[in-house]
Amino acid sequence: MNDYDSRREAPLDLASVFLGPKGENADVFEKLLLEAFRDHVFWRRNFHPEDGFHVTEGEKHSPDYQQAISTLSQELMGLLGELKAGVPFFSPRYIGHMTSDLTMASLIGYFATMLYNPNNVAAEASPVTTRMELEVAAQLARMIGYDPDAQWGHLTSGGTVANYEALWVARNVKYLPVAVRWAAEEMGISGLAVALPDGTQAPLDQLDLWQMLNVMPPAALDLAARFRERVGDAYRAVHALASHSLEGLGFQEFGRRLGTIYGDALPPGVVLVPSTAHYSWEKICRTLGIGGAQLVHVPVDRRFRMDPDALEATVRRMAERRQPIIACVSVIGTTEESAVDRLDLIAETRERLARELGMGFYLHADAAWGGYAAAITRGPDGARRTYTQAMRDYAPEVWPEEGVYRGLVAMERADSVTIDPHKLGFVPYPAGAISFRDRRSRDLVAVEAPYIFHRGASEWGYIGRFIMEGSKPGAAAAAVWMSHKVLPLDSRGYGRMIGATARGALVLHRRLSAGDWSPFRVVPLPVPDLNLVCFAVGHPSLGTLEETNAFVDRIYRAMSVSDARAARTLEYFVTKTELRQPEYGESAVPLVEALGFTRDDYLRVGAVAVIRCTVMDQHLASGRGKVDYVSGFSLALKRVFAEELAGTGTRE
Amino acid sequence: MNDYDSRREAPLDLASVFLGPKGENADVFEKLLLEAFRDHVFWRRNFHPEDGFHVTEGEKHSPDYQQAISTLSQELMGLLGELKAGVPFFSPRYIGHMTSDLTMASLIGYFATMLYNPNNVAAEASPVTTRMELEVAAQLARMIGYDPDAQWGHLTSGGTVANYEALWVARNVKYLPVAVRWAAEEMGISGLAVALPDGTQAPLDQLDLWQMLNVMPPAALDLAARFRERVGDAYRAVHALASHSLEGLGFQEFGRRLGTIYGDALPPGVVLVPSTAHYSWEKICRTLGIGGAQLVHVPVDRRFRMDPDALEATVRRMAERRQPIIACVSVIGTTEESAVDRLDLIAETRERLARELGMGFYLHADAAWGGYAAAITRGPDGARRTYTQAMRDYAPEVWPEEGVYRGLVAMERADSVTIDPHKLGFVPYPAGAISFRDRRSRDLVAVEAPYIFHRGASEWGYIGRFIMEGSKPGAAAAAVWMSHKVLPLDSRGYGRMIGATARGALVLHRRLSAGDWSPFRVVPLPVPDLNLVCFAVGHPSLGTLEETNAFVDRIYRAMSVSDARAARTLEYFVTKTELRQPEYGESAVPLVEALGFTRDDYLRVGAVAVIRCTVMDQHLASGRGKVDYVSGFSLALKRVFAEELAGTGTRE
Repeated sequence: MNDYDSRREAPLDLASVFLGPKGENADVFEKLLLEAFRDHVFWRRNFHPEDGFHVTEGEKHSPDYQQAISTLSQELMGLLGELKAGVPFFSPRYIGHMTSDLTMASLIGYFATMLYNPNNVAAEASPVTTRMELEVAAQLARMIGYDPDAQWGHLTSGGTVANYEALWVARNVKYLPVAVRWAAEEMGISGLAVALPDGTQAPLDQLDLWQMLNVMPPAALDLAARFRERVGDAYRAVHALASHSLEGLGFQEFGRRLGTIYGDALPPGVVLVPSTAHYSWEKICRTLGIGGAQLVHVPVDRRFRMDPDALEATVRRMAERRQPIIACVSVIGTTEESAVDRLDLIAETRERLARELGMGFYLHADAAWGGYAAAITRGPDGARRTYTQAMRDYAPEVWPEEGVYRGLVAMERADSVTIDPHKLGFVPYPAGAISFRDRRSRDLVAVEAPYIFHRGASEWGYIGRFIMEGSKPGAAAAAVWMSHKVLPLDSRGYGRMIGATARGALVLHRRLSAGDWSPFRVVPLPVPDLNLVCFAVGHPSLGTLEETNAFVDRIYRAMSVSDARAARTLEYFVTKTELRQPEYGESAVPLVEALGFTRDDYLRVGAVAVIRCTVMDQHLASGRGKVDYVSGFSLALKRVFAEELAGTGTRE
Repeated sequence: MNDYDSRREAPLDLASVFLGPKGENADVFEKLLLEAFRDHVFWRRNFHPEDGFHVTEGEKHSPDYQQAISTLSQELMGLLGELKAGVPFFSPRYIGHMTSDLTMASLIGYFATMLYNPNNVAAEASPVTTRMELEVAAQLARMIGYDPDAQWGHLTSGGTVANYEALWVARNVKYLPVAVRWAAEEMGISGLAVALPDGTQAPLDQLDLWQMLNVMPPAALDLAARFRERVGDAYRAVHALASHSLEGLGFQEFGRRLGTIYGDALPPGVVLVPSTAHYSWEKICRTLGIGGAQLVHVPVDRRFRMDPDALEATVRRMAERRQPIIACVSVIGTTEESAVDRLDLIAETRERLARELGMGFYLHADAAWGGYAAAITRGPDGARRTYTQAMRDYAPEVWPEEGVYRGLVAMERADSVTIDPHKLGFVPYPAGAISFRDRRSRDLVAVEAPYIFHRGASEWGYIGRFIMEGSKPGAAAAAVWMSHKVLPLDSRGYGRMIGATARGALVLHRRLSAGDWSPFRVVPLPVPDLNLVCFAVGHPSLGTLEETNAFVDRIYRAMSVSDARAARTLEYFVTKTELRQPEYGESAVPLVEALGFTRDDYLRVGAVAVIRCTVMDQHLASGRGKVDYVSGFSLALKRVFAEELAGTGTRE
């Protein structure tokens, strides 16, 4: 299963990976597309040829058939026309949202597989692509650094669902020791030992509620395994747990029992996230019944990374309040700044405080954006590269910073990691992925489907039992699988590709920082960890932060697609975000001050707006083609600044 | 927006819809595929042509480029080889899982759009396909019978997520009146009136807890709207609600407050489903924190439809216990039998008991499988057809039964409906859909994303705010949109197509019922409502139900793909299910008795196994081609029966 061994050593030509901004590789693409299609057609034709044809050539001359095909052709032409009102994500000129060109391997692989229509809910409906899904999940797990024999992972429709699933597991594992205790009592099983966060072992039935809610995730899973062993019959054990667990009883009944038995209602569990966390975490906490208010934002530092000291202070505050922490979420590549948390320091803080305070909680890495960047830490043989080795590839850029490297490597210390192939994996939607370090996690969310059966002992027979979703495209698995074939998850494949985008971002950041923008003031955020560049824009005539924010909004509107602005009329495409005070706290103050405003202004207005540039295209600063895009973008910015200040830009 | 008006009157040739079992329409498909691809390439080429080419023709001769393309080609050939270990879903011989051939319109539409890579999380990343998504959702809503101006709907990755979203809304709307009361008290707003289930109005602040938890969904939404009006400032109102709602506080804190204020912990809310409901409902209840144990199975009748009398008894039992009902889920097309609940009688029961008992709850229709069948109730102009009109189309078959027709029409009375385009819409995964009757439902699940901005008042600017998922393929929306263009949602389009599959199922059912199988005994379930046929098989030498179940399992294994049995070696493909006693209760007893066993046998064994045939192919009984598939299947069955009884079948 170690794909790394079979990798060729030759450097990869990145120019061959995409269809290209001008469709440069259209000839190859078209040839392979036709090959895939015809290959499929002849597979159909060779399956029970004795059945004959269901539409004869003669019937195709009937007026009804002709009319139906005319309708199809006409509607397709209509669709193709409509699509051209879309956005040119394929162009280096597009540095807006997290969308770009896709690898040819994934596009053709997706299409080829879609013709077969496999459904990865169960291997019986997807014998080939379910295997591919588990293969790519194992590849991602190996890149992270999980033990391939112990991990469990699969694809999802996207990072949001992957994050749902991680927190669903975290919630269930948090309350698992209580469920085991009740189930053991019911079945007359005593003497179950459990490891405490300080490393000691204790009998489960002598723990108080607080201790039970602070068992570390692996210890909780060990405890459940020990319970199952003692019960002997797996089926009975599962049912006993289900009738005492949070997921079985629901929060209301589980909470009532806690109150009755321990004389106290369950203290609301909280989820810690950096203040830069994706907005979907609030949605996830609401949906899972944890509550949006139980999402605790941990302040970030001036590089927009979760501050380990702030994390420590938060954990200590929770310990004082005896408020359980369900999970701490670290972000590897924020959606606004591409900031990579110092996950190494976060993991260390968790472990140290577990020992000191006896407080255990789940650690999840939301690497939906930045996960693929961990490819830079792997050599062609799959071994970890040192920081020096990794950095050498990108000289003369000094990238990655050592802290970023350490954050990426530390994903192996998280209990689970979300990685989106449909982001920096450059494959089509829908392709998110979730990796769990401990495959037993999935037992916490497993249900039975009556109409799907295991084939003997084949454990991958029906992965739908272990996931949040149901039906899902086998084509997505094939697309990721193909893309990993041409771009391995190491320094020569995805590592180089993502390095090229980081280089583009660094060049852009330098240009923005060093350029002469007078009379305007361009204030970039600090050097990005990966490949997002944000900057604010001021002008002496804009006397307030409100006016400045409104000006940034006008720049954004002048450089993005809308009903009033078709893509073909635009030169460059950006997006915009706001650093809002409730989440960003002090970390945005330096930016506000550099614009000439005060901390008080920021508090009053509540947010500072910035232009946001996502660099996913390898060509932004590659020097290929005839245009220097970074210079072109700078010129375009200057023109837009002037027009929007004067009010002479095209109005919407 | 009424697409029905523009529909052509000519009958549609169903033969033109799919690529075909033998790739009969490969010529048209290939032509359109190339057209779509080249059209896209030239769009790229015409976008800022001055940029030049990023890969020159000369560079393509470099060894690195050549090697990279060789790798791509080789890996694609590898993929194409692997895929042939897949399952021939395209063939009428495949009557196993719910997977089949897909419309050419959707496949080409998907591919054409995938090249543009739109992400329907926000219109800015998908200006074209977000509009298409909302268009197809509106088309589905019109087919259901929802007011187009009041409805809200969108696509999801599948029926499971659509059902999650429905129950998420149901859970939030159940506890909404309590949240409004607390928010109103905090803001000093008094005198809010709310409609009670018996039709009277009452002041919110004089209701007891039980009354607040039994407001009907539209009345709860009206109440929240009135609260927002009184607050005046929409932002303040939303925040006030969030700090008092279940989704804001979470179950633990919300329950604690209820206990403190009303002197009683919240009684666990329950979810009612027919005993035939999809297994994912348990998963959904677990995830949402409601608890698997709070899923109450309502018995079904002998046609496997939820028994309205049993529903009434269940509701009365809950009323006596003062246990709130969060939602009642009705199934339109069960995954095992394609049974269509008498939703008309269920809706009537709900309304009658609301008046009598003062007990209100949410009603959801899980029509993931059967939703598209509602097309038979619509004429070309979009108007409802009478039952007689609908039935006339399928003569000489007597299909649908009047109860099925009434169940389909009654979807308009549910608060929400799940429909899967990737099932009987014949489009690629991932394409589920959720429709809400009242668009205000979405406010209960809305969150804000900082980096996405509304364009002025455009309400569809960012649908990601209102859905469970995040990123999702715009290509899926285009695929559904294209498919609805060639197959309208009326009696001539999807109605005819699904009628053709129902006809195949009826012919198959008759053959199974009337055939001479001696010495075997073939016992089909009752005539299916839509297009699934299940049957048990017995033999005098199989003296116990256990042995009979094991025999059915062997038949299934002999007629399905596995590691040991490649698709090319099989003649026909089926799947299998078990009617398990905990869910099916008495409804499976007639089947057991017809096999020659007793009710006690069933209770002892706990389940009866049946072969399950899903008829999605229009050709099963169409008489096109050279083979009579129903006869061929019967012959194959006889052979397999004999081989498996004698133990001479191929062993795995």
